[in-house]
Amino acid sequence: MLREQAKAYFESFQDRLCARLANVDGGAEFREDLWDYAPGDGPGVGGGRTRVIEGGALFEKAGVNVSALEGRLSDRIADRLNAEQRNFFATGVSIVIHPENPHIPTTHANLRYLELTDDDGKPQRAWFGGGADLTPYYPDDEAAVQFHTALKSACDGYQADAYRRFKEECDRYFFLAHRGEARGVGGIFYDYLEQDLDQTFSFTKSVGEAFLNVYPEIVEGRRDKPWTAEQRDWQLHRRGRYVEFNLIYDRGTLFGLETKGRTESILMSLPPHVRWSYDYDAKAGSAEEKLMQVVREPRDWVES
Amino acid sequence: MLREQAKAYFESFQDRLCARLANVDGGAEFREDLWDYAPGDGPGVGGGRTRVIEGGALFEKAGVNVSALEGRLSDRIADRLNAEQRNFFATGVSIVIHPENPHIPTTHANLRYLELTDDDGKPQRAWFGGGADLTPYYPDDEAAVQFHTALKSACDGYQADAYRRFKEECDRYFFLAHRGEARGVGGIFYDYLEQDLDQTFSFTKSVGEAFLNVYPEIVEGRRDKPWTAEQRDWQLHRRGRYVEFNLIYDRGTLFGLETKGRTESILMSLPPHVRWSYDYDAKAGSAEEKLMQVVREPRDWVES
Repeated sequence: MLREQAKAYFESFQDRLCARLANVDGGAEFREDLWDYAPGDGPGVGGGRTRVIEGGALFEKAGVNVSALEGRLSDRIADRLNAEQRNFFATGVSIVIHPENPHIPTTHANLRYLELTDDDGKPQRAWFGGGADLTPYYPDDEAAVQFHTALKSACDGYQADAYRRFKEECDRYFFLAHRGEARGVGGIFYDYLEQDLDQTFSFTKSVGEAFLNVYPEIVEGRRDKPWTAEQRDWQLHRRGRYVEFNLIYDRGTLFGLETKGRTESILMSLPPHVRWSYDYDAKAGSAEEKLMQVVREPRDWVES
Repeated sequence: MLREQAKAYFESFQDRLCARLANVDGGAEFREDLWDYAPGDGPGVGGGRTRVIEGGALFEKAGVNVSALEGRLSDRIADRLNAEQRNFFATGVSIVIHPENPHIPTTHANLRYLELTDDDGKPQRAWFGGGADLTPYYPDDEAAVQFHTALKSACDGYQADAYRRFKEECDRYFFLAHRGEARGVGGIFYDYLEQDLDQTFSFTKSVGEAFLNVYPEIVEGRRDKPWTAEQRDWQLHRRGRYVEFNLIYDRGTLFGLETKGRTESILMSLPPHVRWSYDYDAKAGSAEEKLMQVVREPRDWVES
């Protein structure tokens, strides 16, 4: 069954990514929490395995979470999905990594498989979704190109125009309308791929493998770069934007909270230290201002 | 005209509250920014006056913002208001104060007057809304009672059951469903008071005056209490809940962002330093755990 296969892949992905991240970090081990899905006001089946590093040598906070659960959609989500069926099965893996060093970009990835099921538990609709995006604190064309190149290669094995479409979708999705800013340099984002599930599953696995290879490489290339207190302060303020995105716009966060998922696992995405100052802005001509130009105008990092 | 009277009261309130807060703080002056409403994608008339303290002797961040503007409702807000008219006029004052000392509670207050107007600018519906709430980081029954007593006295001059109703409304409104926690010890909250506008305006002014008196008194009673690094860390984590509430649930924030208000004025409410740690919790038997009991079970602080 596809749902079992998807769940098994996400679990294996979690194992391998955590091992790689712990190895790159050098000084940290993942704490693991197993949890049962307990929505409280309705039936809940399944649960998850949350793994978190805090205070690592490189990773100030990193979470890699798998879950597989059955539940009931809230009215709001059912409306949005135009769903006749209110029962769902969802399995996925979510990753958010906040390095301490402002020269190492933050990243997020999510791979997921969803089914809307009838009262007998038979899937009426099913789809894969996923993606990965990179949020640098300082301009870093090399990292952006490396990240996009890896994701494009995963997309190219799926459909000729997949990278272009999913890159644009990512730019649209990870956008803070109230700031007029992208969250970072993007990546890919796709959702509701209901056709040819075997193929989209293969594609989803390719995205996972691409991420598994490329992000640790990006970290390793920047791990020894020194930073200043001013650069750290800039990072903490930019992390504020990350929080704004996740709490105001992010569908995954909303889905998790509205379906009464485990709050601590959902909000592991929030950065460990954050600042908000009134009217905080980059100085003219600074590296920080260059970063703002990057997030205000999405670029093509590789030919599509 | 009521809208002019409301605006004038909110401006006078801002002047008097800022003077009082600067005086209590001792070491800080308010920075002032005048701004024009510029929604970008539609007509905008009016603007606001934002005043902010950062890094004061007591107030790590304090914002007192007045605005008076005309605009167009977004689809989402028009739906929620069940509004036939899409033009609105809104004037109000918003206050959020984040003291540095974890023994001084954070507070928020908002007083507002709204009109939905027809194409000739004539009001078809109009109402006052408002309220004030207190968010302590440590159990402080005395402050909670003082705050509620002041607000109750304002309510008692309006309607016999107003305090009970608006206190309950506050407990319902300032609630983080995903945490099962109130934001703090509450206060009062009211909205859509469309009847007897002269009376509800008087009531709204009484709420303003009550707040103006009681919060500075609460600050003064706690200004010299020393705190530890652990208590500060607890405060920074609790501030995370404040951010979660404002960005996930707060209607005022949503209204402001969706009507393309001035982002920096709307998000002045966010605390200056914030922490999120995975599965962060209070130690059994600690003062922090007692605070959690307070926010998990709304209490009657005064007889109603």
